Amino acid sequence: MQTLVLVLDLIGTFVFAVSGAGKGVANRLDLFGVLVLSFAAASAGSIARDVVIGAIPPAAFGDWRYLAVSALAGLITFARFRAIQRLRSAVLVFDAAGLALFAVSGAQKALAFGLTPVMAVMLGMLTGIGGGIVRDMLLAEIPIVLRSELYAVTALVGAGVVVVGHLAELPPTGVTIAGAVLCFGLRVAALRHGWRLPTAKPPPAT
Amino acid sequence: MQTLVLVLDLIGTFVFAVSGAGKGVANRLDLFGVLVLSFAAASAGSIARDVVIGAIPPAAFGDWRYLAVSALAGLITFARFRAIQRLRSAVLVFDAAGLALFAVSGAQKALAFGLTPVMAVMLGMLTGIGGGIVRDMLLAEIPIVLRSELYAVTALVGAGVVVVGHLAELPPTGVTIAGAVLCFGLRVAALRHGWRLPTAKPPPAT
Amino acid sequence: MQTLVLVLDLIGTFVFAVSGAGKGVANRLDLFGVLVLSFAAASAGSIARDVVIGAIPPAAFGDWRYLAVSALAGLITFARFRAIQRLRSAVLVFDAAGLALFAVSGAQKALAFGLTPVMAVMLGMLTGIGGGIVRDMLLAEIPIVLRSELYAVTALVGAGVVVVGHLAELPPTGVTIAGAVLCFGLRVAALRHGWRLPTAKPPPAT
Repeated sequence: MQTLVLVLDLIGTFVFAVSGAGKGVANRLDLFGVLVLSFAAASAGSIARDVVIGAIPPAAFGDWRYLAVSALAGLITFARFRAIQRLRSAVLVFDAAGLALFAVSGAQKALAFGLTPVMAVMLGMLTGIGGGIVRDMLLAEIPIVLRSELYAVTALVGAGVVVVGHLAELPPTGVTIAGAVLCFGLRVAALRHGWRLPTAKPPPAT
Repeated sequence: MQTLVLVLDLIGTFVFAVSGAGKGVANRLDLFGVLVLSFAAASAGSIARDVVIGAIPPAAFGDWRYLAVSALAGLITFARFRAIQRLRSAVLVFDAAGLALFAVSGAQKALAFGLTPVMAVMLGMLTGIGGGIVRDMLLAEIPIVLRSELYAVTALVGAGVVVVGHLAELPPTGVTIAGAVLCFGLRVAALRHGWRLPTAKPPPAT
Repeated sequence: MQTLVLVLDLIGTFVFAVSGAGKGVANRLDLFGVLVLSFAAASAGSIARDVVIGAIPPAAFGDWRYLAVSALAGLITFARFRAIQRLRSAVLVFDAAGLALFAVSGAQKALAFGLTPVMAVMLGMLTGIGGGIVRDMLLAEIPIVLRSELYAVTALVGAGVVVVGHLAELPPTGVTIAGAVLCFGLRVAALRHGWRLPTAKPPPAT
């Protein structure tokens, strides 16, 4: 189980780091700023999760592979930004994969640290969306996850599958794969069909 | 004592969640974004306090009632935003109540975890104002508490009463109520009379 | 060693608090906001480091001297803003000193808490630049360290000297001084000569 979580985490780290680095380049940050954005986008979610559940030091600081993977993704994006821009829709699909992987691995780790089922779902979702939130905050933007299409909800569903499977004592590997596939499929469908959550109508400005 | 802290915390959570959700709706976030804002405004202060004093997992993640209360407040605000807007001055009074409750419960918890008196006062204040700071940062705004009327100082006074009472070995329930009432009264008076802190005069831009 | 780290930390705290308070005054925050900015700029880096390495409560909350020093720096800046503005280039040199002191003390503390060498270098850098990042985020600006001249890299070099010296079992005091001097010298040279990191060329906006 632990190996599975690690592998999922490292793949998710790479794709999220590419998204962070891409926004860094687009905002004309220098090389250092691009690397910070790639690390933040890739690891802020899991760092927040680990601090909250008491896994100290957080995996992103205790295991050099996370740092190496996000630095590598940042350097590639910095060097080949135009090529990656042309792959924009592929990047969105990879981002959906990263979201799915982080949501299920985050929920697994929260369960392993003894959090309650409801909170394990929340922390799975936080692991998935935390990096994107910090990435956008560092760029002084309102995080896109707070107002875009269906994104966080798909992470909630993926983490929920993992936790329900855990409660039902199903085999963890199968449950993890099912949760990740469901999250990924929902997210890709939401992208393709433009599914959105409702917004409230605020009254005219006063 | 622990029951008192819990009840104060849950009431404070509700009113702060309404303030967060209200700003979320006003900024046209979707339903998920509104719920994130209500949770952040309600719980970021206590999460920061708990991480710093070592109360892991933070109460907001270890006890489902905080999450339930802030989600409920968020949903009500989302569904009834116009009605809540008309109650704007009532919301400010409730917000003063939330500030008072968080400041005293935060100071109590910091003392219980062995922090020094000065730091217990600081952490009481942080518990009171932290949620509003994160709420505004998520919206890419300069936190209003950093430049508005008398707000944080009233939390400082409330937390200070709790800590001084603790040092004088007065009964905690009475001290807590006194601190909360004083903070609340000061804040409402500041709202009514427009009391402000001074600002320095920066030189003309160069 | 511990005394050396404390003294370096307090000096760094003062100069960083001046930088935070100065930006707070320039953004027309009130007195409370200026004090928050001075504390955040001075202590956010070391708080993040301490939370991540498990040094709870963080030094900035466990030792009143950090708070006292940053409040003092904030009050002086608030009262004498024009005078400090005229000293702008001196402030930049002091800021370089703060960066050097935090980078080496942060790396030392991370080593003392058993982090790996690579992560001790990262955390030294984070201690040096974290305050400036939070300061700018509180003002809803993209952190200047992510796009300005050579800044974080000099902290990386200073922290790197400390860690390499530790691995080589050289005397810690000498190594700490060497790292700080090198970081400071590089930063001042970067200021004087306008050294910058490269930025990638984003394609024309689409």
